[in-house]
Amino acid sequence: MWRDLAPLGRHAATGGYRRHAWTPADADCRAWFAAQAESRGLAYELDRNGNQWAWLGDPAAGDAVVTGSHLDSVPDGGAFDGPLGVVSSFAALDELRRRGAEFGKPLAVVNFGDEEGARFGLACVGSRLSAGQLTAEQARELRDADGVSLPEAMERAGYDPGAIGPDPERLGRIGAFVELHVEQGRALDLSGDAVGIASAIWPHGRWRFDFRGEANHAGTTRLEDRRDPMLTYANTVLAARKKARLAGALATFGKVAVEPNGVNAIPSLVRGWLDSRAADQETLDRVVAEIEQAAAERGARDGVDVSVVRESFTPVIEFGHALRDELSALLGGKAPVLATGAGHDAGILSGTVPTAMLFVRNPTGVSHSPDETAAEDDCLAGVAALADVLEGLACR
Amino acid sequence: MWRDLAPLGRHAATGGYRRHAWTPADADCRAWFAAQAESRGLAYELDRNGNQWAWLGDPAAGDAVVTGSHLDSVPDGGAFDGPLGVVSSFAALDELRRRGAEFGKPLAVVNFGDEEGARFGLACVGSRLSAGQLTAEQARELRDADGVSLPEAMERAGYDPGAIGPDPERLGRIGAFVELHVEQGRALDLSGDAVGIASAIWPHGRWRFDFRGEANHAGTTRLEDRRDPMLTYANTVLAARKKARLAGALATFGKVAVEPNGVNAIPSLVRGWLDSRAADQETLDRVVAEIEQAAAERGARDGVDVSVVRESFTPVIEFGHALRDELSALLGGKAPVLATGAGHDAGILSGTVPTAMLFVRNPTGVSHSPDETAAEDDCLAGVAALADVLEGLACR
Repeated sequence: MWRDLAPLGRHAATGGYRRHAWTPADADCRAWFAAQAESRGLAYELDRNGNQWAWLGDPAAGDAVVTGSHLDSVPDGGAFDGPLGVVSSFAALDELRRRGAEFGKPLAVVNFGDEEGARFGLACVGSRLSAGQLTAEQARELRDADGVSLPEAMERAGYDPGAIGPDPERLGRIGAFVELHVEQGRALDLSGDAVGIASAIWPHGRWRFDFRGEANHAGTTRLEDRRDPMLTYANTVLAARKKARLAGALATFGKVAVEPNGVNAIPSLVRGWLDSRAADQETLDRVVAEIEQAAAERGARDGVDVSVVRESFTPVIEFGHALRDELSALLGGKAPVLATGAGHDAGILSGTVPTAMLFVRNPTGVSHSPDETAAEDDCLAGVAALADVLEGLACR
Repeated sequence: MWRDLAPLGRHAATGGYRRHAWTPADADCRAWFAAQAESRGLAYELDRNGNQWAWLGDPAAGDAVVTGSHLDSVPDGGAFDGPLGVVSSFAALDELRRRGAEFGKPLAVVNFGDEEGARFGLACVGSRLSAGQLTAEQARELRDADGVSLPEAMERAGYDPGAIGPDPERLGRIGAFVELHVEQGRALDLSGDAVGIASAIWPHGRWRFDFRGEANHAGTTRLEDRRDPMLTYANTVLAARKKARLAGALATFGKVAVEPNGVNAIPSLVRGWLDSRAADQETLDRVVAEIEQAAAERGARDGVDVSVVRESFTPVIEFGHALRDELSALLGGKAPVLATGAGHDAGILSGTVPTAMLFVRNPTGVSHSPDETAAEDDCLAGVAALADVLEGLACR
């Protein structure tokens, strides 16, 4: 199962995955999911927002136990972020069948579309749409770097973009959602545990900083006549790191777009995206405000206009204690409970349905990179834990 | 003539020109050149390196007087950089015919291909190839951002890439080359002159800085566990500005490429291109060495590997004093003589044939930008000066 999925959307030069929403690589992953469902005799469903479901039992019966994750990736991402959860879901189902488990509730595996937001800049589009946290109108405005809109991208991939929107009926069938995910930090590595349970997701967001100066010839324009936005951007990158460090928060500029981006042209525009996260909302607000202030102050010196747009924001998410404690009990009380800075479809769904997450140890903490890894034993421990949880939740 | 050329390759959103080598916009400009030649009864020639020539008189007679410039542009460049020289060349020829000038030597207008190097990263490819300053083997290695090689690009545009290489015979026919160009600084504006004569081109070059760190998740990787090359890049941008300022030189990072360039991914690679220039070689060498040192020092702090490749370099070019003084005399001794930081085909040719340049006043100094401009009166003064110079050189 893992072997079939591994080569899909893998970039030969980098070894990283480029499984971006509604691309051919994404279509390959989706075909893989449908084939997995079929080979297990599960009922395959594609919902209005392009999320894929594989059902055991009657979906309409309600109080379903659902597990899954996503198959798309960041640019040059690793093999585990997302796919480990989907593969483990099918593997846990296989394990339960081996155990001869008798299910008292319907069970489903889900693949949420466009979790990483690598193409359209907004994460968790599939789950956000279904949960009503993103309207169809907002989604239709999303465009990729080439100017292709989300509806156009869906249409080119053979899906109907006219149907996107909230899906309360489908989510209403779910009694519990459990997402298994490779850990994206080193907490389990440091504590020496193969599997952990999520307590909360830090509040986090994306801010787009537009630094606007004046394009000019790099070889003939005197330094004192320049309005060079690259200087303001560079200063802001360093300020972001410093402000985050002082506050115990995270701040990252990982994406940049420059116009005109010519070697001998002073840029007219440098656009940088800030990703920032903190343990609580107040700290996050303060850090971002300090970064904005540093950018504005340096921009005034450089003759560069700075404008900031918050492109997305997710408040702190505390997973429900009841389901969390139930998972903990089902795992014999041995799995540590930890917070994470990363957003997940589980975080989106947690506002609508009882939701929990399992993490599998990441020995290096490396994530969103071809070097992301997890030991085979730990992956198998994750499958066993997920099987235990699903059995406990669905076979009562 | 100007009206026909103005819309070609103009980007609707930015108002800037995107006339990059061997693109459809470039083909439009080339068709315009051929039509201008034909409408004046000039003999049109395309040379082995894709440079276009329009001849009045017998090219083989030797000791020709040649004028011209280039029609390609930087990304979102202005209307004047390059095209003003080509348009003025045809206009000066028209003026000389109006004057009833009798030419004692062959005269030609030239459009050199790929002067700006916007697509393949190396400036003056057409003139470099012809002058033997770039070998055919080196040119065949050039690739654009999409991985398309120069030969592939030429072939797609309908040209034969197999023929590229040095062209001593064609250049040997030239007795004097004069390039008219819009000034790219404010020296003429400050001195109050419409037209000036070039003394020299500053030594200048392009260096590619590769900052290699480790891709990781922006939301879960502790700051102290990161190897974030964006920090090293940002620090280097600011160091470059400072070192250049202290030395009275120029240093610019105008082009950046980031991998994977995802909002929530710490980059694995930030690639930044340094353009640096100074009045003399020693100063330039020192400034670049200081910037490299600053990058390496910060890289060591950030856990980021820094490597630097010099992608192109042009030593100081002093235009020949004899032709320069002749131009000055033909213009009544009134045109100021000034140096420039910008490279030109004239600089490449100056090693092979007697070469001079005329500059037309730029009221704002803005260049390589849609805001680049020149007053109509100054452009007409440029045409008159070029006509005087050509008449003096070709009608003796």
